[in-house]
Amino acid sequence: MKRSTITVNESNAFVTTFDLPPTGSGSLDGLCFAVKDVIDVAGCKAGCGNPTWRDSHPTAVAHAVCVEQLLRAGARCVGKAICDELAFSLLGENYFYGTPLNPRAPDRVPGGSSSGSASAVACGLVDFALGTDTAGSTRIPASNCGIWGFRPSHGFISVAGVNPLAPSFDTVGVLAHNADVLARTVRVLLAISVSASEPATIHVVQEAFELADPDIQQGLLESVHCVRNLFGEWVRETSLRDLADGKDFANWAETFCEIQWAEINSCLGAWIADAKPEFGPDIAASFELTSQLDRRRVADALQQREEYFRRLHEVLEPNDLLCIPTTPTLPPLKGSPPARTSRGSGYYPRTLALTSLAGIGRLPQLSLPIANVGGIPVGLSLIARHGQDDFLLGVAKTIEKQLCS
Amino acid sequence: MKRSTITVNESNAFVTTFDLPPTGSGSLDGLCFAVKDVIDVAGCKAGCGNPTWRDSHPTAVAHAVCVEQLLRAGARCVGKAICDELAFSLLGENYFYGTPLNPRAPDRVPGGSSSGSASAVACGLVDFALGTDTAGSTRIPASNCGIWGFRPSHGFISVAGVNPLAPSFDTVGVLAHNADVLARTVRVLLAISVSASEPATIHVVQEAFELADPDIQQGLLESVHCVRNLFGEWVRETSLRDLADGKDFANWAETFCEIQWAEINSCLGAWIADAKPEFGPDIAASFELTSQLDRRRVADALQQREEYFRRLHEVLEPNDLLCIPTTPTLPPLKGSPPARTSRGSGYYPRTLALTSLAGIGRLPQLSLPIANVGGIPVGLSLIARHGQDDFLLGVAKTIEKQLCS
Repeated sequence: MKRSTITVNESNAFVTTFDLPPTGSGSLDGLCFAVKDVIDVAGCKAGCGNPTWRDSHPTAVAHAVCVEQLLRAGARCVGKAICDELAFSLLGENYFYGTPLNPRAPDRVPGGSSSGSASAVACGLVDFALGTDTAGSTRIPASNCGIWGFRPSHGFISVAGVNPLAPSFDTVGVLAHNADVLARTVRVLLAISVSASEPATIHVVQEAFELADPDIQQGLLESVHCVRNLFGEWVRETSLRDLADGKDFANWAETFCEIQWAEINSCLGAWIADAKPEFGPDIAASFELTSQLDRRRVADALQQREEYFRRLHEVLEPNDLLCIPTTPTLPPLKGSPPARTSRGSGYYPRTLALTSLAGIGRLPQLSLPIANVGGIPVGLSLIARHGQDDFLLGVAKTIEKQLCS
Repeated sequence: MKRSTITVNESNAFVTTFDLPPTGSGSLDGLCFAVKDVIDVAGCKAGCGNPTWRDSHPTAVAHAVCVEQLLRAGARCVGKAICDELAFSLLGENYFYGTPLNPRAPDRVPGGSSSGSASAVACGLVDFALGTDTAGSTRIPASNCGIWGFRPSHGFISVAGVNPLAPSFDTVGVLAHNADVLARTVRVLLAISVSASEPATIHVVQEAFELADPDIQQGLLESVHCVRNLFGEWVRETSLRDLADGKDFANWAETFCEIQWAEINSCLGAWIADAKPEFGPDIAASFELTSQLDRRRVADALQQREEYFRRLHEVLEPNDLLCIPTTPTLPPLKGSPPARTSRGSGYYPRTLALTSLAGIGRLPQLSLPIANVGGIPVGLSLIARHGQDDFLLGVAKTIEKQLCS
């Protein structure tokens, strides 16, 4: 672990710190990690970023399965990290617990909902951290804080002991300082070994870059050139219309949100109606949206999702990659949350269009911390075929060796 | 729907009946269905087969996403079906709510945990029913009651609004009178259309048949011959050792159980410790097992699982099928629950060895009601590649047309 000059208190990354020693020895020996507070650690309540939730749920009697795997492989757990309320935000500003520090851009949000996890890594307080990623909650804070972030293929890392948000998209994500720690950690969680192989085709998705602010496009240009130099003739410009049958990219975000909101209402609606929790104003508005949805539309959205899924699966050959910006903008400034909507040209629709590719496709996505705009980090993302997480981690290590050395 | 001579009361299949009309029109017009009581219907509590659970959880404010899909496609929901406590049994004898009728073998259990769902279909009270299937909870009652049962590929039918048991294996299953209704229903839930294609190779798995009682082997012989006549040269005897690298079949059940029990403890352990619910004696013993597990072993079990998964994925080519008995014995007699263990030659280890193939492989499995032993139903199962649910449903319809006409 990098020695930090930032203290735990200065970071505001943690709900609580402790020292939970490893239960075995293996590829994570000597590493320490933080756990997002929607993931169970025995003896702790999973507060899920909201005091009413914390007070109305019992203490965990067992670690989440993913935590158990990491301890068994030699890692040490040092605390639970602050997150957005019920994991339903991409910002990282918690009304009750404050905003974890983004050390690379202190006046901007760290990103959420795995805000404390990303902050703890970026502040050098842990080697890696567990987050979750439904709509971007690991990828976005990785991009904002300038660290490595990984969302796995859906269904390949156990979510037992992780609070559900929208199960069709919920995954356990990993944030880390470097590609080696990232690959080792994800390999433990996937219970597989990393295989090294070269990419077949890297599709640089035009519409995804066009969706980003001009300064982001500019800031990522050099990184894309580096990827091009590294992988040469395998890199090519691709239109999403070719990839997904001419559908407008904006429709991906709407499809994603209709399913996500319906599932959030199914998973959390009864508790909200019963417990009547206090939420921060931004989160309250978000949950209001999920309860106002015309639920009959979810059937149509699911059909659209499966069409996109199949099309992506047909187009992405083994060892192919998609290359997109992780986020379309710089991290928002603290204290000015953008409007929550799935349509239009605001922060959320554009961000969700980008994050929905992997969500809808059940695909693994890696956010690489290899770019910046005036010193503020911006992530470049690579997305692989469903189940090719190992291949994607191998590519991560190749890129790190070439670009970050 | 078949007109039933058995009344709702005689069936003891339902927790409650109601009339929830469709919200749209489509491929399920005119059909009615029951919902296992671990799946949300707005305005009802999901009792999950246990009174303490019912009383300590709020009323659902929204239908589960899968229920929403069925209503939208024209089906009518007529009630919530009894199930085993917290869905953690394969028998169907509920200490609090009694045993739903198995009309084909009234002195034997219907099978669980989707007991009432299977009973309602088998008694002719509904056209189809939703169950869940983690370790066999849809496939086993389908086999016991002589109806069609389907477990989908893991992760392809939304589980939002379905109470989690062991998320790495949890699926929403369907029980139906006939292959056509089954295929139409599953197609709505998967949000795909069924494609017809011929099987490449049907692997009749020797060890799976050897695991079954002699009368089951004998009873399934004719069905296997029928499948052989139907698909001819594509059918061949296969050893699981060829399929899965020489591993003993018994190990599959142990691997499955270590993960399942760890996940159950993660999902339900805190509630059990906090609410101290009364359980039936058999279920209490089962939950005791999950809390006594050495949880450090789950990491090793997950590695073994992924090895098996990859091997199955390599061996099962597109359009290949595995053919196995759904259950290794006749349905147990009522009132004499077999011992709950994952080792040895008892009911559970042998049954779980068979059901763990699809569970560990994330594979779709179909139980066909095309055999019996002295009039008592016995299911024959076909298992397809991950994601080939549509193909498997097409095969079901082909078989029904040829064998059941």
